[in-house]
Amino acid sequence: MVTETGTHTFESLELDCGVTLSQVDAAYETYGSLNADRSNAILVAHAFSGDAHAAGDGGWWFNMIGPGLAFDTDKYFVICSNVLGGCRGTTGPGSINPVTGQRWAMTFPQVTIADMVRLQKKLVDRLGIERLLAVAGGSMGGMQALEWAVTYPESVAAALPIATTAQHSAQQIAFNEVGRQAIMADPDWAAGNYYGQKLPGTGLKLARMVGHITYMSDDSMREKFGRRVRANETSPGGEQFEVESYLQYQGYKFVDRFDANSYIYITRAMDTFDLTQRGALGVLFDGMKARFLVISFTSDWLYPSYQSLEIASALRGRNCDVAYCNLDSRYGHDAFLVEVDKQKEVVAGFLASTFRDVTRQKAQPQKVQRG
Amino acid sequence: MVTETGTHTFESLELDCGVTLSQVDAAYETYGSLNADRSNAILVAHAFSGDAHAAGDGGWWFNMIGPGLAFDTDKYFVICSNVLGGCRGTTGPGSINPVTGQRWAMTFPQVTIADMVRLQKKLVDRLGIERLLAVAGGSMGGMQALEWAVTYPESVAAALPIATTAQHSAQQIAFNEVGRQAIMADPDWAAGNYYGQKLPGTGLKLARMVGHITYMSDDSMREKFGRRVRANETSPGGEQFEVESYLQYQGYKFVDRFDANSYIYITRAMDTFDLTQRGALGVLFDGMKARFLVISFTSDWLYPSYQSLEIASALRGRNCDVAYCNLDSRYGHDAFLVEVDKQKEVVAGFLASTFRDVTRQKAQPQKVQRG
Repeated sequence: MVTETGTHTFESLELDCGVTLSQVDAAYETYGSLNADRSNAILVAHAFSGDAHAAGDGGWWFNMIGPGLAFDTDKYFVICSNVLGGCRGTTGPGSINPVTGQRWAMTFPQVTIADMVRLQKKLVDRLGIERLLAVAGGSMGGMQALEWAVTYPESVAAALPIATTAQHSAQQIAFNEVGRQAIMADPDWAAGNYYGQKLPGTGLKLARMVGHITYMSDDSMREKFGRRVRANETSPGGEQFEVESYLQYQGYKFVDRFDANSYIYITRAMDTFDLTQRGALGVLFDGMKARFLVISFTSDWLYPSYQSLEIASALRGRNCDVAYCNLDSRYGHDAFLVEVDKQKEVVAGFLASTFRDVTRQKAQPQKVQRG
Repeated sequence: MVTETGTHTFESLELDCGVTLSQVDAAYETYGSLNADRSNAILVAHAFSGDAHAAGDGGWWFNMIGPGLAFDTDKYFVICSNVLGGCRGTTGPGSINPVTGQRWAMTFPQVTIADMVRLQKKLVDRLGIERLLAVAGGSMGGMQALEWAVTYPESVAAALPIATTAQHSAQQIAFNEVGRQAIMADPDWAAGNYYGQKLPGTGLKLARMVGHITYMSDDSMREKFGRRVRANETSPGGEQFEVESYLQYQGYKFVDRFDANSYIYITRAMDTFDLTQRGALGVLFDGMKARFLVISFTSDWLYPSYQSLEIASALRGRNCDVAYCNLDSRYGHDAFLVEVDKQKEVVAGFLASTFRDVTRQKAQPQKVQRG
């Protein structure tokens, strides 16, 4: 699989909050080859804690992107970039403010999902792609896919919002708020100015523990841990539940790779994302040209199926081209990362038919011209 | 309503862990009057963060216990006591260790649900009650009701486990573990030795925020908060979501009335509670004489209905006297505190028929003697 890794820097980026950022980096990777008429490019948008490294060893969607996989790199040119506000190469609160020469920290402007997509659009333009074959993503990646279709309807042939929503519910906001409060309660957070000092690891670890519970289902936790215990000398009785040990380990691991301020900024972007602010979903989708494949998972209680159904219903109500698959799974929200076979079955076919349509559309005007 | 408040002190209490506590206080309240043959006493067991003040102004079950209510104090004598390990009058980690003259803090032995019930049994004995008409409680209170029926089958005519389980699932343990870690991560926790100093309020507040999310349902949170915002000058954009403000307020309030070490001890007691450790539930219930009313609520995702159904099925399978009601509610786990009318309908009738049975049983032997 041909893979490229890079960073593009953009002179300026206007944000929803009114601020204009200058010298904005967008870290990205690409997999596969762009075809001659540049019609086979798919943008894959990552979820909250992901990054540009989507495919190959250690990639967050390694099982979905590659030769012969759901996003088949023998056919398509797949792009993934780290989101604005992130901490994995793209400009975020941990970056240097070019004006002050200091880290932004909490002086970084509050970014939105639309801001993230605006930066992705610049990147896609820079890569010389006029129209994406598809934008796909799970969770916060799905929000970006929706945002792309609504904001740049001429620039995307298909959208695949997976395990996502058009707006966070009170419960989704609440879980994110617990994570933010856990970070900000850590004295090492120091109002965000911890760079070069002790990281707010305790708070970030706690936030991640809560997150992990919401990513799994009651069933999958039972299957994976049940009530099994393991030795732990600091616990009463000398043992602890395996689920306790697992969550703590996941929390620790996360501290090594994620910036606490990015956690705060990105979760706020998710919480404030609300497509319905611009009008009823149906009205928003009126005249929508992109095709949609909306996917949810039966046991996902963090992004429940009814939220995907709302999107699909609104699209269908406006006579848009939409397929909705509520895939059976026990894996909760994590399903979009692990239910590979079930997703491949619907994704591969959807992409193939979209590619056929796009190719036909490109061919037809030429025929007319000849006639 | 005749109300009495008191504390009884017991010379010693043997714990499951092998330790024997001495000079153990049990704070309690009673409502209504004990009848002449002492057959109308109902023990009400409180949930995790409750206390002995169950009825009347500010009582945690004020809407369920009182004249004409589900637990009708015109008919029954209702007892409620603060649990062992608690912080509202009964001995717990915040109490003075009589041997050292210092607070127990984290040297307090790890208590179990069975230990809590053992202390309650001593209290009920002290009050001169040989056999309870019923033991009732929601959530952790339901665990105590189950424990009573299994451990003291001769001492309880009926059990009402509500919104509870015979053993915590991995998910239930996980949420409790997040709360414990939040407390222990607070530097003010100081390994539990914060008494007389600054309380670990930040950690305890966080723990309570997580708890509150799990007590509500997705629906009830939408109804109560939706995506409504309110002014908040410290938030980006000058506003925050109402659900954020609510959770923070609930967290702050909790710090004033609850001891962080009790939080750790009591949640561990819940997590290690496991009736099935003594054998399959069916075997455990074999020959059970107590009648059961098992209640769950459709939207309770913290203590899902299937856990109550497991209890009811095991009882039914051993030909025990059991009724199971899965009450329709949108209020999640909080339903056992707020769905008053629905619970009253089934509880009042169940208690009345139990009281009739108990009265008849008492009367019959006398008739035989006369003959």
